[in-house]
Amino acid sequence: MKVTPWEVEGSVDYDKLIKEFGTQKIDDRLISRIRKHSKELHMFLRRGFYFSHRDLNLVLDDYDKGKGFFLYTGRKPSGPLHIGHLTPMLFTKWLQDVYDVNLYIEITDDEKFVFDRNTDWKQIDAWAEDNIKDIAALGFDPDRTFIFKDREYVRHVYPLILDVARRVTFSTVKAVFGFTSESNIGQIFYPAYQMIPTMLEKKRCLIPCALDQDPYFRVQRDVAEAVGYNKTSVIHSKFLPPLQGVQGKMSASMVDTAMWLTDDEKTVKKKVNKYAFSGGQATVEEHRKKGGNPDIDVPFQWLKILFEPDDKKLKKIEDDYRSGALLTGELKAILIDKVNKFLEEHRKKKEKVDIEKFMKTGKLAQKMWETYYE
Amino acid sequence: MKVTPWEVEGSVDYDKLIKEFGTQKIDDRLISRIRKHSKELHMFLRRGFYFSHRDLNLVLDDYDKGKGFFLYTGRKPSGPLHIGHLTPMLFTKWLQDVYDVNLYIEITDDEKFVFDRNTDWKQIDAWAEDNIKDIAALGFDPDRTFIFKDREYVRHVYPLILDVARRVTFSTVKAVFGFTSESNIGQIFYPAYQMIPTMLEKKRCLIPCALDQDPYFRVQRDVAEAVGYNKTSVIHSKFLPPLQGVQGKMSASMVDTAMWLTDDEKTVKKKVNKYAFSGGQATVEEHRKKGGNPDIDVPFQWLKILFEPDDKKLKKIEDDYRSGALLTGELKAILIDKVNKFLEEHRKKKEKVDIEKFMKTGKLAQKMWETYYE
Repeated sequence: MKVTPWEVEGSVDYDKLIKEFGTQKIDDRLISRIRKHSKELHMFLRRGFYFSHRDLNLVLDDYDKGKGFFLYTGRKPSGPLHIGHLTPMLFTKWLQDVYDVNLYIEITDDEKFVFDRNTDWKQIDAWAEDNIKDIAALGFDPDRTFIFKDREYVRHVYPLILDVARRVTFSTVKAVFGFTSESNIGQIFYPAYQMIPTMLEKKRCLIPCALDQDPYFRVQRDVAEAVGYNKTSVIHSKFLPPLQGVQGKMSASMVDTAMWLTDDEKTVKKKVNKYAFSGGQATVEEHRKKGGNPDIDVPFQWLKILFEPDDKKLKKIEDDYRSGALLTGELKAILIDKVNKFLEEHRKKKEKVDIEKFMKTGKLAQKMWETYYE
Repeated sequence: MKVTPWEVEGSVDYDKLIKEFGTQKIDDRLISRIRKHSKELHMFLRRGFYFSHRDLNLVLDDYDKGKGFFLYTGRKPSGPLHIGHLTPMLFTKWLQDVYDVNLYIEITDDEKFVFDRNTDWKQIDAWAEDNIKDIAALGFDPDRTFIFKDREYVRHVYPLILDVARRVTFSTVKAVFGFTSESNIGQIFYPAYQMIPTMLEKKRCLIPCALDQDPYFRVQRDVAEAVGYNKTSVIHSKFLPPLQGVQGKMSASMVDTAMWLTDDEKTVKKKVNKYAFSGGQATVEEHRKKGGNPDIDVPFQWLKILFEPDDKKLKKIEDDYRSGALLTGELKAILIDKVNKFLEEHRKKKEKVDIEKFMKTGKLAQKMWETYYE
C-alpha cells in the first residue's frame, strides 16, 4: 500500500491509513449526530465510504450551538471530469442541503498553470468553464455557493495568502508536497492559496475529500490559528476504484478505466464490459456453482459507492451475486444502465446551468466580490 | 571587498566589480550618445557615479530608431527614506525628462510583509504613503509615471507573475537571493513579482540602480524572452557612502550615519560635524601645511555625488581642500548648507504633491488600471 497526495497504489488498509495519517474514524456517535440533523443519512455515510475525519465533532458542536460552519472544495481545471471527481462534490452538495451552509469552490487555474509549463490561460479557461458547469449542475444553492478562479479573485485574498505564506517554510512544503530544489517558485508558493478558502469565514471550515488529500490541509492546521482563523476540519472518503480493479484510485491519467462525464451510452457499455474487473467465475457453470465475490468486483463496488442508493436493492444484488444467481454480465448490465441514466440526467442539468449565479450574481458571490481580506 | 544585494563591505574596487558581475563599463561612446540626447549630461554621468550597465546600448539604439523604452524603479516601504534611497530616483527623474518615457515605480508592500513577520498592513501602508510622497515630490511626469502597491495591482499581473514563476526554480532563487530551506514560501515567490515591471511594456526596460542590486535582474534576463518580453537593461551606480566613511554603502540600519529626508537643520549640522569622516589633518596648522584628501573625505564625496552640480565650484572646493586653503570645518559647513537647502526644498514639494495622479488619475495610471496582463 502506498498513499500520498500523488499516488494511491496497492490494496488499501483503511484502518491502518487512519493510524498513519493520524485522523479519527467516523464512529457511531458521530453518525447518529448527523442522522439527527438529516432526514436520511447519505449512502456515503451509511456504507462507510466517508469513514475518517479531523474535528468533525467540533463542526457538529458549532452547528448545534447555532454558530454554523462552511464548506470548501475545489478543482484544478486540467481536463474533463470523471465520476471520481464528482464523488466529493456530491457529498458536499448533500452537506449543504442538510446544514444550509455556505460553500466555497476554488478553481485552481494558477495551480494548473504553474504545474504545466506547456499550458496557457485559454486552454485552462476552457477547462475551467466546462468543469464549473459540471460542478454547478449538481444543484448547489446559488445564493450560498461561491465558485471562483484563483487568478480572478487574487486581489481580494492576496494579503491573506501572504500572511499564510510567511508562516510556511520551504522545508515544510518540501516534506508535505514533495517539492525539490528544481520545483518552480510558483509551485512552491501555490499551497498558500490552496489554504485560503478555509479562512473565508471566521466560522469553522469543513472539507470533504478523499483521504489521500489530507496532507494538504495539515499545513493549514499548523498555521491557521496564528493567522486568526480556525484549524480546518476534514471529512475523508475512501477511494473510488477505477474499472480495472478495486485497488488504487480512479485517475484522469488512466483514460480508459476512468468513467468520464462525457462518455456516451455505447462508451459506457463498452468500457464496463471490457475493462471492469469482475469478481465472477471464469465460466457461467462455475459461477452458478461457486458464486461471485462482490468485494473485489468493481461493478458491484460502484453500485455500492455511487449508483444504487436503495439498500434493499443493493443487498439483493450482493446476495444474488454471491450465490451465483446473478451472473457477471447481468451485474454489469445493471451498472451500465445506472451509469447511463446518471450521466444522461447530469448532462441535461449541465446544459441548463447558469454559472454566473455562482460566480457573480448569487447572494454569496456578490458579497464575496465586495470583500477584501487583510 | 564584499558586495551582495544584502551587504556592501570594505573598500570597493569598481573595475573589479564590473568583471565579477559581468557587466559593461559606461564608456566614452555611450556617454557621447547620451550627451547628444540631453542638453546637459547629468552630474551622475559626468562624474562617473553611474558607471556600469547591461544593454544600455540597445536601449539607446531603440530610442534612436524611434521605438523608445521605459523606466522601472521601486521601493520597499519599510521605513523613512534617506538620501541614498533618493539617488537612483533622482537619476530616473532625469532620464524621464531627457527621453520623455514612461516610468513604473513598484511599491513592494508584499516584500516587506513576507520578510518581516512582525509587521502588518497598517504599518506598511503608512510607510508606503510617506515613501510615495517623497518619491513623487521629485517631480516625475504625472501622466507618464505609474506608482503602484503590489497587493493593489496584483489582479492585473498575477498571470504574468505565474508565467515568470513557473520558469524559476528554488535552486535559482536560492543561489541568487540567498534563500535557505527555512525561508518562507512568500519570500521565495516574491522575486517573480519583482521582475514584472520590466514586462509592463513590449519595449525595452531600463532600470537605474546601485550595482549591488544587479543580481536581482539577472534572473529576469534568463527568463524574460521565454515569457515574451525583452531582457531588461540596467544602468548601475556606485554606492553613496554613509557619513562614517567612503567604504560601504548608506544603509537604513545605520540610523546615525544615514541622512534622512526628515532630518532638520540642527540634526544635519550635528550629524555632519559629529560623524562625517574627514580627509583633513588633525590640526588646523597641519591642514594648512599638508592639505586634506578629498578622495576619502565624505563631505567632499557627497558634494561630488549629490550636492554640488556646478563642476567649476566643485573643482575649486577640491583644489582648495587639497591645498589646505579650505579647512575641514569649512568644507563641512558647505555641505551642511547644501543638504539643508535640498531637504527644505524637498519637504516643501512633498507637502504639495498629489500622489493620486501617479497612482490613479494620471494618463499612464488610468491606462494601467484598465490593463490586464496574461
